[in-house]
Amino acid sequence: MTFDYKVADLSLAEAGRHQIRLAEHEMPGLMALRAEYADAQPLAGARIAGSLHMTVQTAVLIETLTSLGAEVRWASCNIFSTQDEAAAAVVVGHGSVEEPAGVPVFAWKNETLEDYWWTATQILTWPGQADGLGPNMILDDGGDATMLVHRGAEFEALGAVPAGPQEGDADYSHEYTVFLDTVRATFESEPQKWTTIAAGIKGVTEETTTGVHRLYQLAAQGNLLFPAINVNDSVTKSKFDNKYGIRHSLPDGLNRATDVLIGGKVAVVCGYGDVGKGAAEALRGQGARVIVTEIDPICALQAVMDGYQVAALESVLAQGDIFITTTGNKDVIMAEHMARMKHQAIVGNIGHFDNEIDLAGLSRLPGIERIEIKPQVHEWVIPANLDGSVDEHSIIMLSEGRLLNLGNATGHPSFVMSNSFANQTIAQIELYTKVGQQDAEGNQEYENEVYVLPKILDEKVARLHLDALGVELTELTKGQAEYLDVDVAGPYKSDQYRY
Amino acid sequence: MTFDYKVADLSLAEAGRHQIRLAEHEMPGLMALRAEYADAQPLAGARIAGSLHMTVQTAVLIETLTSLGAEVRWASCNIFSTQDEAAAAVVVGHGSVEEPAGVPVFAWKNETLEDYWWTATQILTWPGQADGLGPNMILDDGGDATMLVHRGAEFEALGAVPAGPQEGDADYSHEYTVFLDTVRATFESEPQKWTTIAAGIKGVTEETTTGVHRLYQLAAQGNLLFPAINVNDSVTKSKFDNKYGIRHSLPDGLNRATDVLIGGKVAVVCGYGDVGKGAAEALRGQGARVIVTEIDPICALQAVMDGYQVAALESVLAQGDIFITTTGNKDVIMAEHMARMKHQAIVGNIGHFDNEIDLAGLSRLPGIERIEIKPQVHEWVIPANLDGSVDEHSIIMLSEGRLLNLGNATGHPSFVMSNSFANQTIAQIELYTKVGQQDAEGNQEYENEVYVLPKILDEKVARLHLDALGVELTELTKGQAEYLDVDVAGPYKSDQYRY
Amino acid sequence: MTFDYKVADLSLAEAGRHQIRLAEHEMPGLMALRAEYADAQPLAGARIAGSLHMTVQTAVLIETLTSLGAEVRWASCNIFSTQDEAAAAVVVGHGSVEEPAGVPVFAWKNETLEDYWWTATQILTWPGQADGLGPNMILDDGGDATMLVHRGAEFEALGAVPAGPQEGDADYSHEYTVFLDTVRATFESEPQKWTTIAAGIKGVTEETTTGVHRLYQLAAQGNLLFPAINVNDSVTKSKFDNKYGIRHSLPDGLNRATDVLIGGKVAVVCGYGDVGKGAAEALRGQGARVIVTEIDPICALQAVMDGYQVAALESVLAQGDIFITTTGNKDVIMAEHMARMKHQAIVGNIGHFDNEIDLAGLSRLPGIERIEIKPQVHEWVIPANLDGSVDEHSIIMLSEGRLLNLGNATGHPSFVMSNSFANQTIAQIELYTKVGQQDAEGNQEYENEVYVLPKILDEKVARLHLDALGVELTELTKGQAEYLDVDVAGPYKSDQYRY
Amino acid sequence: MTFDYKVADLSLAEAGRHQIRLAEHEMPGLMALRAEYADAQPLAGARIAGSLHMTVQTAVLIETLTSLGAEVRWASCNIFSTQDEAAAAVVVGHGSVEEPAGVPVFAWKNETLEDYWWTATQILTWPGQADGLGPNMILDDGGDATMLVHRGAEFEALGAVPAGPQEGDADYSHEYTVFLDTVRATFESEPQKWTTIAAGIKGVTEETTTGVHRLYQLAAQGNLLFPAINVNDSVTKSKFDNKYGIRHSLPDGLNRATDVLIGGKVAVVCGYGDVGKGAAEALRGQGARVIVTEIDPICALQAVMDGYQVAALESVLAQGDIFITTTGNKDVIMAEHMARMKHQAIVGNIGHFDNEIDLAGLSRLPGIERIEIKPQVHEWVIPANLDGSVDEHSIIMLSEGRLLNLGNATGHPSFVMSNSFANQTIAQIELYTKVGQQDAEGNQEYENEVYVLPKILDEKVARLHLDALGVELTELTKGQAEYLDVDVAGPYKSDQYRY
Repeated sequence: MTFDYKVADLSLAEAGRHQIRLAEHEMPGLMALRAEYADAQPLAGARIAGSLHMTVQTAVLIETLTSLGAEVRWASCNIFSTQDEAAAAVVVGHGSVEEPAGVPVFAWKNETLEDYWWTATQILTWPGQADGLGPNMILDDGGDATMLVHRGAEFEALGAVPAGPQEGDADYSHEYTVFLDTVRATFESEPQKWTTIAAGIKGVTEETTTGVHRLYQLAAQGNLLFPAINVNDSVTKSKFDNKYGIRHSLPDGLNRATDVLIGGKVAVVCGYGDVGKGAAEALRGQGARVIVTEIDPICALQAVMDGYQVAALESVLAQGDIFITTTGNKDVIMAEHMARMKHQAIVGNIGHFDNEIDLAGLSRLPGIERIEIKPQVHEWVIPANLDGSVDEHSIIMLSEGRLLNLGNATGHPSFVMSNSFANQTIAQIELYTKVGQQDAEGNQEYENEVYVLPKILDEKVARLHLDALGVELTELTKGQAEYLDVDVAGPYKSDQYRY
Repeated sequence: MTFDYKVADLSLAEAGRHQIRLAEHEMPGLMALRAEYADAQPLAGARIAGSLHMTVQTAVLIETLTSLGAEVRWASCNIFSTQDEAAAAVVVGHGSVEEPAGVPVFAWKNETLEDYWWTATQILTWPGQADGLGPNMILDDGGDATMLVHRGAEFEALGAVPAGPQEGDADYSHEYTVFLDTVRATFESEPQKWTTIAAGIKGVTEETTTGVHRLYQLAAQGNLLFPAINVNDSVTKSKFDNKYGIRHSLPDGLNRATDVLIGGKVAVVCGYGDVGKGAAEALRGQGARVIVTEIDPICALQAVMDGYQVAALESVLAQGDIFITTTGNKDVIMAEHMARMKHQAIVGNIGHFDNEIDLAGLSRLPGIERIEIKPQVHEWVIPANLDGSVDEHSIIMLSEGRLLNLGNATGHPSFVMSNSFANQTIAQIELYTKVGQQDAEGNQEYENEVYVLPKILDEKVARLHLDALGVELTELTKGQAEYLDVDVAGPYKSDQYRY
Repeated sequence: MTFDYKVADLSLAEAGRHQIRLAEHEMPGLMALRAEYADAQPLAGARIAGSLHMTVQTAVLIETLTSLGAEVRWASCNIFSTQDEAAAAVVVGHGSVEEPAGVPVFAWKNETLEDYWWTATQILTWPGQADGLGPNMILDDGGDATMLVHRGAEFEALGAVPAGPQEGDADYSHEYTVFLDTVRATFESEPQKWTTIAAGIKGVTEETTTGVHRLYQLAAQGNLLFPAINVNDSVTKSKFDNKYGIRHSLPDGLNRATDVLIGGKVAVVCGYGDVGKGAAEALRGQGARVIVTEIDPICALQAVMDGYQVAALESVLAQGDIFITTTGNKDVIMAEHMARMKHQAIVGNIGHFDNEIDLAGLSRLPGIERIEIKPQVHEWVIPANLDGSVDEHSIIMLSEGRLLNLGNATGHPSFVMSNSFANQTIAQIELYTKVGQQDAEGNQEYENEVYVLPKILDEKVARLHLDALGVELTELTKGQAEYLDVDVAGPYKSDQYRY
Repeated sequence: MTFDYKVADLSLAEAGRHQIRLAEHEMPGLMALRAEYADAQPLAGARIAGSLHMTVQTAVLIETLTSLGAEVRWASCNIFSTQDEAAAAVVVGHGSVEEPAGVPVFAWKNETLEDYWWTATQILTWPGQADGLGPNMILDDGGDATMLVHRGAEFEALGAVPAGPQEGDADYSHEYTVFLDTVRATFESEPQKWTTIAAGIKGVTEETTTGVHRLYQLAAQGNLLFPAINVNDSVTKSKFDNKYGIRHSLPDGLNRATDVLIGGKVAVVCGYGDVGKGAAEALRGQGARVIVTEIDPICALQAVMDGYQVAALESVLAQGDIFITTTGNKDVIMAEHMARMKHQAIVGNIGHFDNEIDLAGLSRLPGIERIEIKPQVHEWVIPANLDGSVDEHSIIMLSEGRLLNLGNATGHPSFVMSNSFANQTIAQIELYTKVGQQDAEGNQEYENEVYVLPKILDEKVARLHLDALGVELTELTKGQAEYLDVDVAGPYKSDQYRY
């Protein structure tokens, strides 16, 4: 196997290999799957195009997929998120720089948008494609690989790639223009490229809210070209990633960004969903007094029963030392809010997109000044008498309003990702082995719809992580199982159970 | 209105009225419903047969129903659970003992089983029944009133009440025999009594797991005679009752029973569902070290991520000072477990039925002795060399294995019940006003099925409790609501959301 | 031995014996001392006059003292605090009602003041007194027994018992008048009684702040008649009693008094000393939001670093649902504060005397009404437009402003008292065996001063409680001990160490 | 003022100035002292030689001292701890690189030992020394500046600087040799240099355990040359630095070093003093299960009452995922312990010296391999069958056994240091204004002894930090103060009070 890869050099790869080795220990779910399926090789014959942040944890995922028999090609799903040493180590694999034995990885830190869509194309372009040996699975994070295939095929059916909005148009987007250019190029060289690829794909597994949302829209329109599994809504993904992952990475991000003592401070957490619950717990655990804002009365009642004050943001602007958005909504902290905060209040987002915080509005305040304290940490100096402010004061903005645990720290730790990625791996096996199969009644196991992993597999993912934490699980007796009307082996709860 | 009631005397009623007045303040959900519907009187014409523990909190529920226009007759759903002063106060109402202006209540502390089924019959027997003015709604807790109507009508259709298992038979049950005797008596005097009553009933609202289970079974068999609302699975019922109610009443029950310092002790909590979560939090909050046992790997993973050791019961018998079952399962703590516990280990159940703990097995251990320390607190002295034990030692059993928060303390506090009962009240309004109505498409709003309250009403119940806790709820802007694709007024989450 | 005792009847004594047996298990410190000194009998010859709440826990203390060889006579130090079944069991001892083999106890629930000072006299009046076999040790709680001896001897030296302030005088006190009457009676019958007794006493051990304060005053004036050990300031007494005892008994008292859900409520804790720290932790552990008031900036900074809001009481009157005083100061919650609280705010004291709460001022508010909800729980209805109030509203006062954990619940649990009483027992041994002895340099081991137990004995008390809690203590190596410049066996810290 | 300084360049100084500006906001104690003493200038005439880690926080301290009138010269007390941008900013002050208006700083990151003792000499060598204008105050951290003066004067009195142990001698120390060389050089050029300096010094303030220990030794030997204030034992220093500082910086160090999820892990904390208490709280707050080891039974009892398991290290080697030493003792985690830990157990020290962990022993294990994962993070691979180990496994060692919060993160945050440094500043004012003065009775205010700051000043330091945290402090009424027998303005507690 030969391939052209930018970052493969020996010292990088060695550093990456050390980190991968340490991470494997913290990803018991993936390691258990390697052991369980070592003989069966359920992914033998699978050709997986993977698009997911190319980190050390992802390296463990990739090597899990290959150890189960898959061929894999990989790109990152974000232009900034690649850890080059991880990428290099995966490429080299257990070979050497001269004779790499690993996986083709098309990812490096700080790609351009042109680079980005080129890498997306590369992972879907298989060496043996001409012989019908293109990719037959997609593993996606955010849905860009899936979109490339769907849009590509759509334009090919139309017979043309449209021009898209032009610079100056209201809906102009630089990224979308680059995307169209990319598709146009393949359309010119291989006019049926995406149609052919789409036909060969058995299914996609997707792990983000955003990507899943796109899939449900495609399915609702009847345009989904292959079955999909929504990995995002597994309990072992959503609850763990959101609550326990954030509990870890929020204080980590705050500390690396500011070194400000959290203890004794007033921290305002906007939103009390799973992310907000994890955030509030972490801040309280460091001795902060936490105030929650909420729009949902049930979540608000949970917050108050957990001992937090629940207030409107406007009421606590003058009290808060730290403001964190966790909502997944837009326009949560506006410029006029920030204008009325305490001097040196810290503002950060750990929810979803950067539109939770009105950075645009902030930058438009007359006379405002932005000082870079260090990368991803900016002081915004707000003049006196502005938007309700009295004295000149400043706020400290983390990661320019983007996810602060990624921008100021290193995101979720390996153990959390082991849960998410074990769901991904199990979902890949599920689709690869069952799409096209019929069930006992002669129906297709999977249609071109979006599925959630059955609870028994969700429970399996949890089960794979218990030994590493020293858990002794109790087994139901047969009599108890009958009494509860469940199987001894699970699943133990109804699909509606809230945990 | 005249009726014969055993407990109506003035001093009892006065004492009960004080307690009701204080409880009203702690039940803001019910008080808000009184205010909201004072003019509309949505239950005008409703004749509600209520079967639910006749406590101070239930008194506030009853008077809420009447203030919304309903006529009500009431019995307790448990022979021990009536608070006589609450019953008396409800009977007297705002009248006097001589001229009571309240509600007929057929309940007193320590009924016999014969009494019990007589009271159940009384609440369904309306004075104007002959004129078709029988009950038209049931409010149920555990499903006994609903069962009486269903079985009664079933036997009337059969033309006979069966004899049932006799003493000495394996499946003999004294309670079931009394029940059959009760139905047989009405069958002889009014052979169509239950058939007629069933025909007049618009619906039932039910708040327990057990009662709901029976309803789903009836519906699945096609035997449900009227629509039902499952109040139990509202978030504001299940999460609040189970988690926050138990957090309060578990240490309360332990303290009143034993006065043993919880701090520094090892507490073993069997089960980490909502009840287990509340129990563990309460015990940790008192300085105990909590060890959890679980059969479900997802709940086990939650426990360990919350910082608890998860172990098999067998592994920690020698460490635990306090053992609490919270499972809803049977045979959780067996006699052989108790035989191997530490001297004076405390054993109690806060899950569901008394079969969580093997009291029967314990009492059969050869040479075992039972000493009543005080009512509901018993020391069982286990001889040496028995079932793995070494030295003679004793365990302290609370409430004879029944729910210790009810047996050793006073159950859930008013604020928790306000959530549950606001769900009940809203469900009564929903069924009473909509059963028999058609929706926009001409379909029946409610069939003879089991329904859950729509999320918007669940959110409403939460909303009614926020002011009392000083919560300032944030309102979505129109733009935000569109962004999230929800209505400004809610509901805010999908039905699958796990909170 | 014969004596006249009011409560000794068999069923009481049996009930008390069961409770004592259970309590022994929860008092490992005392049981360990019994085992350690079984052979040495260090209190052989000691005749101890004990004045301390006659509870089940005290019964275990008394029987520990006798098992170490002491003769004991006992009275309660509070007219309300005797548990009659405990007293009866101690009197009967391991004999029978007809032939009691226990200890003379002069205490019953609800004594008059005349009774009280009679019992105090009885414990100091030994049968063999005429032969010089009077009491030679005092074990005191609050200092009344010590005061009786000191004042008695003082008046005997003066040759007369003064009349004291008369009814109508500003400083008239009914209790002091009864006290003087008591002393006057003995003065008339035995004019040198107290002088003789004082001469025979080797020392006193005292466990309350108040009693210790009196002792330091006596010592400062040169009037202390025998050496004293201040048990109150042992770490294992003050930190444990105050912090961990209150953490247990505060929610217990609140629950038994009101059954109000603590979760979600705003609780205002006045004072953040050890008692306040325990109170705040307990309330937070139940899901309340805790606000602290403080006068000491260091304690205030601790509170805020522990995540609590620190506010002036005036600022949070409208927010608090529960107000608890823990200060040891007077005039903490005044009538004008209560007039401005929320409807049905709960007010209680767990600090020290009832003057923390201005009940006198409250009762003088014009138009105020007091309703007894149940014993020790009163609703005070405050008219509209009074002292800053707007609407008519009420507050719920616990235990009439006296210690709510004693008045509404059962005080500190056995395990906490085991720490305090192990200090008492060790202090008794220390004084009994060393007073009058000389040290290596020929100086008296103890002068007529107030001493604190040496840290090594404080550590010993802790050590005696570790096994029961499953603690594995690490032992210093010789090298480590040298490095730290301490002895392998302790003490490990300087006297100033703050823990 | 001119001086030669290595790091003064504009961009460094600008970066440092930004950080100082942000830190000032987090150091309200120092800023309040600047405001309070702006007019009085109590340090006018003081010439302070400062030896303390040259960080951003120290920059705020230095500029506080100068704003109170002092002349200052500064060196770092550790060869690695200087933050060059802070040093540069202090040198430039509010002037420019060409015309610096700041303070002479003799400190840069990564000094040699020769550099180090040269800088120590520089801060004590004042330009106007010839005219008797040498330093008159020392502000010390660890005691090196104080030792230089004392040893220098001692050798001058002896008339010679001894040779010291030579390489190859058992007690040879490279650092001590460099120190002697430094003193020898000054002795040759200025034979009375240190004697003269010592005579001019009014006092020293010292903030570490180690430095204070040396001072008490000097005082005990009668060799202390000037009065000293022990800042270390102020409550606002020891409790805050140790408990709240560690609570913040322990998880920070763990996260930056390893990115390992703390939640769900078993963390073993060796020692439950203030540092251990802060460590345990932080780890529990992140969802770890914490096990404590202790040698002191009182601290052990505190740990268990706080809900932690207390075990011997040997018992939990196979369970722990993270091991943290907090003891101040030596030989706490030995090589044979590490040989029996779980694979990839993390080991770190946050107590005091690196001898808490037996790194020397570890490195001597036959066949052991050390891999640098990144700076300050090393994997030690332990062969199979070694010292009780079974399989080959590795441990992760943080900061080579030195303080991990300094080595892997940035140490204590500014707010914590504001407490410590406010104590330093107040102590400087106290000594500078009072040494040589007589009190009312004509005695010297300060002898050549070691003093602790009076409690009223400790309370003052706390007071200065309350506004920044939004605290409303309650003021005692005159009546309350009399009742408590304290002054309205404090101090409020006895010197023995434990907080």
